[in-house]
Amino acid sequence: MGICMTTDRTDDPVLDTSVLFDGSEVRILDRRVFPQTISWVSASSAEEVAAAIRDMVTQSSGPLFAAFAAMELTAHQVAALPVDEALARLSYAGGVLATARPTNNHPREAVSRVLEAVSGQRSTAGVVEAALEAVHSGQELYRARSRTLGRETVALLDDGASILTHCWMDTYLIELVRSAREAGKSFRWIATETRPYLQGARLTAHTLAEMGERVTLITDGMGAAALAGDTSLGRIDALVTAADRVSLDGAVVNKVGTLGLAVAAAAFGVPFYALVQAPDRDAATAADIVVEERDPAEVLSTLGRRTASELVTSAWYPAFDVTPPRFVTGIVTDRGVFAPGAVGDYYALTPSGALS
Amino acid sequence: MGICMTTDRTDDPVLDTSVLFDGSEVRILDRRVFPQTISWVSASSAEEVAAAIRDMVTQSSGPLFAAFAAMELTAHQVAALPVDEALARLSYAGGVLATARPTNNHPREAVSRVLEAVSGQRSTAGVVEAALEAVHSGQELYRARSRTLGRETVALLDDGASILTHCWMDTYLIELVRSAREAGKSFRWIATETRPYLQGARLTAHTLAEMGERVTLITDGMGAAALAGDTSLGRIDALVTAADRVSLDGAVVNKVGTLGLAVAAAAFGVPFYALVQAPDRDAATAADIVVEERDPAEVLSTLGRRTASELVTSAWYPAFDVTPPRFVTGIVTDRGVFAPGAVGDYYALTPSGALS
Repeated sequence: MGICMTTDRTDDPVLDTSVLFDGSEVRILDRRVFPQTISWVSASSAEEVAAAIRDMVTQSSGPLFAAFAAMELTAHQVAALPVDEALARLSYAGGVLATARPTNNHPREAVSRVLEAVSGQRSTAGVVEAALEAVHSGQELYRARSRTLGRETVALLDDGASILTHCWMDTYLIELVRSAREAGKSFRWIATETRPYLQGARLTAHTLAEMGERVTLITDGMGAAALAGDTSLGRIDALVTAADRVSLDGAVVNKVGTLGLAVAAAAFGVPFYALVQAPDRDAATAADIVVEERDPAEVLSTLGRRTASELVTSAWYPAFDVTPPRFVTGIVTDRGVFAPGAVGDYYALTPSGALS
Repeated sequence: MGICMTTDRTDDPVLDTSVLFDGSEVRILDRRVFPQTISWVSASSAEEVAAAIRDMVTQSSGPLFAAFAAMELTAHQVAALPVDEALARLSYAGGVLATARPTNNHPREAVSRVLEAVSGQRSTAGVVEAALEAVHSGQELYRARSRTLGRETVALLDDGASILTHCWMDTYLIELVRSAREAGKSFRWIATETRPYLQGARLTAHTLAEMGERVTLITDGMGAAALAGDTSLGRIDALVTAADRVSLDGAVVNKVGTLGLAVAAAAFGVPFYALVQAPDRDAATAADIVVEERDPAEVLSTLGRRTASELVTSAWYPAFDVTPPRFVTGIVTDRGVFAPGAVGDYYALTPSGALS
């Protein structure tokens, strides 16, 4: 029934579409067990989606798409209600979703966009239509801005560059690879495994391999040795990570481990580029950003199996760390690359296009 | 039959004695699976001991004690041979043991001590007696020098200090804790898990807990966040690690991950002390020290179970990294604490007491 083509290289890795809405349920690919297990978590309410976000079923850009899908689900669920009740239900869902995780701002951004769109609508049909339009245009805007980030980053890197990355850059990574191909550039990747959740070993290295990229895995402690150079791994040309949040003074809040790599990169003269669609206009400095701490039991285990001695009862699990601007070379946004000290100018450039 | 006392605190943790010789076999505690499994590997020849060292059954100071035990075993095995043959067999065993691992110098040191002692002996009985004396005095010298390192390090630290450590300092750690108790000082420990072998999660945190110390486990990527301070973990007062080797210009070769912690400690004003009995008189700089690379498959798995995506085929596993002297505060030796640039003076102080 047609021609079946197989290839080792794909521009559409599995993680490119990891949240689905089928009209009655939100389905979220469980990144905690991917790729060893392909499992989708079903949610039939905004509360269930929020719980999935809180429980790390999805992370990085996943909570954005999950929150949009939860608002779309809620819009469908309120379609037969009086307009006041429909608006109240959407607002309530928004409140539940927005607070699912303290550092990742994506659910808040998705919720704000939808609630702004429905505000002032006089009919339930108008509410639903405005909500769905806000969801779909928001999802497309996020992808378009990610493509811009990919292009901007590729322009910073020479053909053949070796890139060290940490954790999982998600849509930015996929768009970066696509942009490199359009630009005729080929990179080599070094990915940290990113304990405790192993996003690097399971998501980043997997997706890069799936896309046919050259990728070498290292443990989190090997980053500085790689950046120092003069090893069998060869030269590293850039450290490139996403940023969960960037404050207006250029501090980068990203997965714990980023700080150590950034400090080592600065010490050994390797540029560090952090990708974020827009800095956080509500955070003058990193002190305005809450750094989430998660269950320290995760540090004692690996993929659900105890790896520390049973005698050890105390652990610490900050999900993110804060890289001061002096260790950052450039912040890549959808309005171009900023020196960290100048990233506050982002909002001076054009009227805001941020999702929020 | 007497009074049984139980206590949560012991000055004699299991790992303090992890190589045994019973007259016919060397038994080595398998640190690859400790403490989840208490298993002893038996070796009835120097070749089998060397294989155990190469396979990481034991590491850190373990190879020193294992090499001494292998030379003791060999001395027993040659006791009925003509003297020339006895000396040749001991030399051969020494050659096998000395090259078991390229970066850890301990087997070479143990072998040299024994071979120097037996050289020139005219009878087999003299060879055996000299070998056994060299083994026993070498083992005791190593312990005595480790006690000195413990005392010297404790003198650098205030009562109540929080210490970040990496990998497994072995005898130095145990003696440091004992010395602190003698000095009436109490420390709090933060231990990295130290992937891929998890020496921190399995050996360091276990032994500290066994000794009744306060210890908090972190992943390898969290060290910089801890050193930066201003977190719920509180202030870190010092980074303290062992050094597998120190070159005469003060570069520290230690478990991979040390470099990243040292660079972060320097960036955030936390002192870094590296413990070694003596610098390496044959290494003018770190370029004279071979950094061992081990099987990269270890990076793809954790305790024998695959943790990376099956699509990932490339990994990198340097067992050690090199911390340049500019990131080191002090090198603690059995002749006192040296600024890294002055550690070459070690051999000017007194006639050499190094094991070799």
